[in-house]
Amino acid sequence: MDFSSKLLERAVDEMSQLPGIGKRTALRLVLHLLKQPEEQTSRLSKSLLDLRENIKLCSNCFNISDTELCEICANPNRVSEIVCVVEDIRDVMAIENTGQYRGHYHVLGGKISPMDGVGPSQLTIKALTEKVREGKIEEIIFALSSTLEGDTTNFYIFKQLEGTGIKTSTIARGISVGDELEYADEVTLGRSITNRIPFENSLKS
Amino acid sequence: MDFSSKLLERAVDEMSQLPGIGKRTALRLVLHLLKQPEEQTSRLSKSLLDLRENIKLCSNCFNISDTELCEICANPNRVSEIVCVVEDIRDVMAIENTGQYRGHYHVLGGKISPMDGVGPSQLTIKALTEKVREGKIEEIIFALSSTLEGDTTNFYIFKQLEGTGIKTSTIARGISVGDELEYADEVTLGRSITNRIPFENSLKS
Ligand SMILES: [Zn+2]
Ligand SMILES: [Zn+2]
Repeated sequence: MDFSSKLLERAVDEMSQLPGIGKRTALRLVLHLLKQPEEQTSRLSKSLLDLRENIKLCSNCFNISDTELCEICANPNRVSEIVCVVEDIRDVMAIENTGQYRGHYHVLGGKISPMDGVGPSQLTIKALTEKVREGKIEEIIFALSSTLEGDTTNFYIFKQLEGTGIKTSTIARGISVGDELEYADEVTLGRSITNRIPFENSLKS
Repeated sequence: MDFSSKLLERAVDEMSQLPGIGKRTALRLVLHLLKQPEEQTSRLSKSLLDLRENIKLCSNCFNISDTELCEICANPNRVSEIVCVVEDIRDVMAIENTGQYRGHYHVLGGKISPMDGVGPSQLTIKALTEKVREGKIEEIIFALSSTLEGDTTNFYIFKQLEGTGIKTSTIARGISVGDELEYADEVTLGRSITNRIPFENSLKS
């Protein structure tokens, strides 16, 4: 693309760094902002900077939070002994949406993926096993998406927990294999948490 | 959507103000930024603010430009007596890409669209007719997309120019009616400029 303005070119370049946003879409978005009142661009930029600079992760579960402990961990009505292990905050939001889960979460921040250079140490696995060894958790529910990376991550954590005697389960596969958790409908997702099965059983398939 | 963080919620809200970006996509984009180095967010925000604050429109053709006169208007090798009337900068970029046009442009900044509350006074039509009356232009090429709004705009300008004796033409319709100009392939678009027809002839269809 040949731009008549360096300012425009730079904005389009930066916008097209976002996943799924090509140059053409980026140009459309940027030109849209130019037609809107200047405040819209200020608000967008400021909200992104604010988030990036001030974002906190819950010190207990690594959920995105504005406070030291997230709302879920800080809620005395939640069952802290049951911990649902998820990949990222979108999965927390998806499960919360079902209204059927009253335990805590543990957000891994990703899945083990040698292809993408993501090893166990880049995830919050150590913090999870420490919580287990401190005797704070009675049951762990694996709720990663059932892809190769998800299964690998589940299994790695399962191995790390050997000898702790902790109960482990995975959410029931009401949703088809390979489906992303966050796109599952609420009923199916809620049911698959209620009907969770011992993790060992899931290895027999 | 139920967010665990107001900072996150605000960023997703602002991002989803952009056209074609729903809440879910906005969340994906924002979480992506959180995983990237902080500089990426700074650069994106800064480039948008810079553009919005410092953007100029060429004083002659209203093309987006970093300078008082855009590169095209400032180029002595371009034919200033032929002016191609387009809706926005994307059309300028599309036509420039063909490499077959050596004249100037006039960027209207939109199309007349009563439905969207856009009347002639919100576009740069007056500046165009003034340039014509000052005798600076010999031929006007209408290159708006052939939608109802595009045709209305062409016709409105054509009427404004009555009595000036100026030559008017529209780009040849090698591209199908209703197609957006910017998505046409370069060969078709280049040819439709070369084969432009007198505007009066286009009214006979
Ligand atoms: Zn928490
Ligand atoms: Zn210009």
